[in-house]
Amino acid sequence: MTVDGGGYFKQLPLFAGIAEESISRLESHAEFHTFPRGAVIQRQGSIPTALPVLLEGSVQLLGCVRTQRPVVVDIVRAVEILHLAPVLSTAPVPTTIQVVDPATTVMIPRAAVHKCLSSDAHLAYRLLTILGSQYEGLVSQVKNLKARTASQRLAAYLVELAEDRGARVVRLPFDKRLLASRLGMTPESFSRALSTLRTYEVETRSSEVHIGDFEKLRQYALPDGEDWEEDTPEEYS
Amino acid sequence: MTVDGGGYFKQLPLFAGIAEESISRLESHAEFHTFPRGAVIQRQGSIPTALPVLLEGSVQLLGCVRTQRPVVVDIVRAVEILHLAPVLSTAPVPTTIQVVDPATTVMIPRAAVHKCLSSDAHLAYRLLTILGSQYEGLVSQVKNLKARTASQRLAAYLVELAEDRGARVVRLPFDKRLLASRLGMTPESFSRALSTLRTYEVETRSSEVHIGDFEKLRQYALPDGEDWEEDTPEEYS
Repeated sequence: MTVDGGGYFKQLPLFAGIAEESISRLESHAEFHTFPRGAVIQRQGSIPTALPVLLEGSVQLLGCVRTQRPVVVDIVRAVEILHLAPVLSTAPVPTTIQVVDPATTVMIPRAAVHKCLSSDAHLAYRLLTILGSQYEGLVSQVKNLKARTASQRLAAYLVELAEDRGARVVRLPFDKRLLASRLGMTPESFSRALSTLRTYEVETRSSEVHIGDFEKLRQYALPDGEDWEEDTPEEYS
Repeated sequence: MTVDGGGYFKQLPLFAGIAEESISRLESHAEFHTFPRGAVIQRQGSIPTALPVLLEGSVQLLGCVRTQRPVVVDIVRAVEILHLAPVLSTAPVPTTIQVVDPATTVMIPRAAVHKCLSSDAHLAYRLLTILGSQYEGLVSQVKNLKARTASQRLAAYLVELAEDRGARVVRLPFDKRLLASRLGMTPESFSRALSTLRTYEVETRSSEVHIGDFEKLRQYALPDGEDWEEDTPEEYS
């Protein structure tokens, strides 16, 4: 269905501060879609013809390497712009977008995005900050994968979840297989990691996790902190 | 030293197609610096006051997690813009930039970048494509870390190096400790991975690597390929 009447995009914080002319142009070309769980929105290796904006639900970004099982590069919740980089470069999309929780997207044709970008510095600036924040999320993930053990990555995930919810008893928001792949583990090493965390007073019942001693778990997770400077030389000046 | 005379930026392919006014404005505020091996250009956690453009040499982006040894998130060769995302968001920089091979940078004050971006859609568009390509590089690295074993990551690196050089005998461009961390391994597992690759006719003498059977190594490295589709469902349409 085509967006009719208009005005929907204006309500999205995502597009706050963008010129009305750009908003109208993007919206006049956009199409809403709803997708059931399991549906593939864009497939790794395809050249994107439209920019998907996830309005409701959540999706996984699957990375596929030949003859291996796909891995979960990231899990993304609404509202978020997906695959912005390949729409700009007209490169093949680097992951497959697959629906985890029933999703609503609006697809903005690539040509409309390019046309608006070439004349509207504010739109380009807004997209730069969005892409910049996604870039920083990936840097953080790479650090996490390289510097932490599997158990520490799970601990860090639980610490963050508990802080977000403001609770010491949290429910895992996704099934264990999905979480395991997102954190760079097999389901088996995810189970082992959960067992290891019992030492840090973490108990699980089905998908509910009880954190007995939050500070102890936080220490084990080795969050990024201020005292890392000890290891690195002084800044050049 | 301040850039005098001007015209230097215009020669950089990095800034191709940018309006002369923006180029002049960026250049008039920019300062050249040279850094010796080991110098720190920006430090994780600091708020950047300038955007570094690496003109010569190479640097490592170090990710530091408290009480752990820093890990190499990436190795970057000139010419490249570094830490673009945090200059836009004014967030702390996510990695420490440390010089690997003696480097020349030009530092563009953040205020000048923001001022140009707010009025020049072409500059913003150009920076979007640069950030987009850096984003895609990180996605590829996350897939690599999650889907491949240590030996397969080393194999994939050697395959790419041999293809770039058009040779079956290649010299490792960085020392083994640096490469190991970049590929997400300890120096010990890097050595074990090199031993494993003997099965695939890879022989090392110091930093020189001989690839006996390139196709066999390529098969083992499991490059991203077309036949991954078997594992994923049909695209929604």
